[in-house]
Amino acid sequence: MRQIILVCILLSSALESALLQAAPRNMILIIGDGFDDQHVTMGRNFLSGMSGQLGLDSLPFRASVQIETVNAEGRPLYVADSANTATSLATGAVTNIGRIATDIADNDLTTIAEQAIEGGWRVGLVTTSSLTDATPASFLTHVSSRSCEGPKEVLGSTYYGIPQPACPRDARDNGGPGSIVEQLVNSGAHVLLGGGDKFMRQTTVDGITVSQLAVDRGFQIVTRNTAFDSVMAAQRLLGTFDEETLEVQWQGTDARVAEPIELSWLSHISEYFGSVTEPSPMSCEPNPDYDNTPRLAAMTDIALNHLATDNDRGFFLMVESASIDKQSHKRNPCGSIGEIAQLEESVALARSFASNHPETAIIVTADHAQAAQILPEPTLYKNYPISIYSPGLTARVKTPEGGVMRINYATNNGFSEEHTGANVPLFANQVAAQWLEAFMRQRDVHDAMQRFLFRPDEE
Amino acid sequence: MRQIILVCILLSSALESALLQAAPRNMILIIGDGFDDQHVTMGRNFLSGMSGQLGLDSLPFRASVQIETVNAEGRPLYVADSANTATSLATGAVTNIGRIATDIADNDLTTIAEQAIEGGWRVGLVTTSSLTDATPASFLTHVSSRSCEGPKEVLGSTYYGIPQPACPRDARDNGGPGSIVEQLVNSGAHVLLGGGDKFMRQTTVDGITVSQLAVDRGFQIVTRNTAFDSVMAAQRLLGTFDEETLEVQWQGTDARVAEPIELSWLSHISEYFGSVTEPSPMSCEPNPDYDNTPRLAAMTDIALNHLATDNDRGFFLMVESASIDKQSHKRNPCGSIGEIAQLEESVALARSFASNHPETAIIVTADHAQAAQILPEPTLYKNYPISIYSPGLTARVKTPEGGVMRINYATNNGFSEEHTGANVPLFANQVAAQWLEAFMRQRDVHDAMQRFLFRPDEE
Repeated sequence: MRQIILVCILLSSALESALLQAAPRNMILIIGDGFDDQHVTMGRNFLSGMSGQLGLDSLPFRASVQIETVNAEGRPLYVADSANTATSLATGAVTNIGRIATDIADNDLTTIAEQAIEGGWRVGLVTTSSLTDATPASFLTHVSSRSCEGPKEVLGSTYYGIPQPACPRDARDNGGPGSIVEQLVNSGAHVLLGGGDKFMRQTTVDGITVSQLAVDRGFQIVTRNTAFDSVMAAQRLLGTFDEETLEVQWQGTDARVAEPIELSWLSHISEYFGSVTEPSPMSCEPNPDYDNTPRLAAMTDIALNHLATDNDRGFFLMVESASIDKQSHKRNPCGSIGEIAQLEESVALARSFASNHPETAIIVTADHAQAAQILPEPTLYKNYPISIYSPGLTARVKTPEGGVMRINYATNNGFSEEHTGANVPLFANQVAAQWLEAFMRQRDVHDAMQRFLFRPDEE
Repeated sequence: MRQIILVCILLSSALESALLQAAPRNMILIIGDGFDDQHVTMGRNFLSGMSGQLGLDSLPFRASVQIETVNAEGRPLYVADSANTATSLATGAVTNIGRIATDIADNDLTTIAEQAIEGGWRVGLVTTSSLTDATPASFLTHVSSRSCEGPKEVLGSTYYGIPQPACPRDARDNGGPGSIVEQLVNSGAHVLLGGGDKFMRQTTVDGITVSQLAVDRGFQIVTRNTAFDSVMAAQRLLGTFDEETLEVQWQGTDARVAEPIELSWLSHISEYFGSVTEPSPMSCEPNPDYDNTPRLAAMTDIALNHLATDNDRGFFLMVESASIDKQSHKRNPCGSIGEIAQLEESVALARSFASNHPETAIIVTADHAQAAQILPEPTLYKNYPISIYSPGLTARVKTPEGGVMRINYATNNGFSEEHTGANVPLFANQVAAQWLEAFMRQRDVHDAMQRFLFRPDEE
């Protein structure tokens, strides 16, 4: 009898061990670009009401993440861009603005996605930006500047007529690994879904298009019209569904964005004289150009199915909601809020997936803070006998609950707002929370994901 | 033998139960006024360096708190003031801007501090503002407007020549409970330490000063020169160490605050022409007026000793670091940062106290978000052949680690910045964390404190 019991114990222990070893380990990192606490609150107020809560808010764990950036000499800078922050999340290292998984001496930094591929995990990148944009690029490519997106740009480009850095050492012309898009298709990724079709059509030094290179590397190229049910999970998947960034789902009334306050002629004598005319309130309405753009959640769904099917090891999936930031640069609060709604759908989908796949860690975070501020509507000084107004650009957004949310953009007078320097929020499910602290530096988030994914299998 | 063991078990159980019942239960709520994530990060970058951490950051629990405000008709507003937010923290109710523990129909709302006094706990309020300012006032008084600080102001006042609301129903002249300062000294509080001496010297309708009224109510009046060791713990303690707000410890070089960018004459043709001159970087230096102003930590220390000595029940202590907000209104980043350093000292003191008093919950949070933003230094557009500058007011603060942190204020063109609408951070020790969630509305923080403090004694 004792022997039977002993055998049973040994058997059940071996079985448990086998089961534990077999459980695929999945890391889902969802990045809301520029999704700082002002933007989180903008989203909450509009989508759920002042007293409501986002889906995100029901995640059991919350932390603050300190962003680190250095200049070319390694001295601290207090505001980041999406390239150096994605590099911190992807590699655990601190670097300079504009750098993609390279340090300030231009050495390549190994990314968690590369380690995952090396270790037998599948890797997916899903984004509403171009796949070659700074955030996704930093997980699987290494260049000295984020502007080196395609075989053309790696040799130099311009943006609004302003010359952008080339990446001569990275160019295949000079024996390097190539532009971001070339490195992406050579990376061993299993799923790449987003925008950036214009880079796929460029020709490499071998005289073939990047798209052809991708097919050579085993990717099935998917389009807006692909029947995804027919795609084999074992095959690599690549879809670029727009020229660069995907269209956003919402815009302000008549495509209005934040506008300046109008001053009466008396104001030219003193800014406190005369009267001010505020921009009229706007609603958020569908963007007609959004059309049949794939939703972030639809792309996330395809990626999750494709990464998880017939996969005993697990996967690393990065999902980026890019246009929270991009629309804030354009002073378009409805654009940002619609994108937050898309992020919400993807988080819900990831949580639903995790409920059926127990070893799935979900982390949602921002890469850096952004310009938008929610200001009092009306100003507290409305009864003062002088003109009080914001010197920036103002949008007064009507909320579904019947309020008016005033969003202000005042970081500069130019064509694009600038990022700001606050620490950013991090949200996590219980599986991820065990590896996290209430306060972390951004590089610590990388280290925690690495510890979760690559820890030895349980005894 | 069995009987002896049984008796021992019963005895030890009774003893444990008695010990549990006897353990004083202490709630320390530390409010950083306007201490949102931009300000937290400003403090961290300056005091601990970009890669460092504040003392606060080592607290094991972090949450986000959604602020709720309504207008006079009960419709949502998306930016709060310190009166309605302190009311939410103190009472668990949502109210309109300017209201002190009253609802929009002017009904009094019971505060957690009043419940504590009722239940036999000692109550202390410590602040760097006037004790009659909105945050402390909301914990022990009820008036329709925050401006009703003294027996004079309750009948109406002006601020920079602008008429401020009176509180006719609250005035003792009309049979009400009186101004904020009168209600404070009548409240049954055990410790009141902060600023606001000018209100203590006012005369009540009974022809005595508020200070005399306080003595009648059993307060020992303390000053900057009091030997606190000699003060009996059983006696109430009241100290107002400055006319209104206490001086802050730091200021910018030569008392400079944020300044406008200077534009060259060509800019008057087009804002993109010509050149811009940035304000020169400033250091943070001691404020000469700070002199022998009591530190927030010193007041916190006195309060903790005084509340805890010979007290079996426990206490509720609210500590406010008021000038993070007040200095941000004045566009004075060094003022705010010096005040964050004061908050840090008080948090350290509270944690040290809690390490010797196990049933001590510590919550640190902000009441609302504030104007300051950390912007890129230099602007990312510095190489563009046009003039790019912030339309607001800029301070470039030299940090001890050798960086320059650019702080921007651009909510309005007037004499005082306005609050902003982001959710705010909450930090807690492990004792408090058990009662909290990762996401809460501000009123939920009240409810959690209430559950912790007033739960039935353990069986």
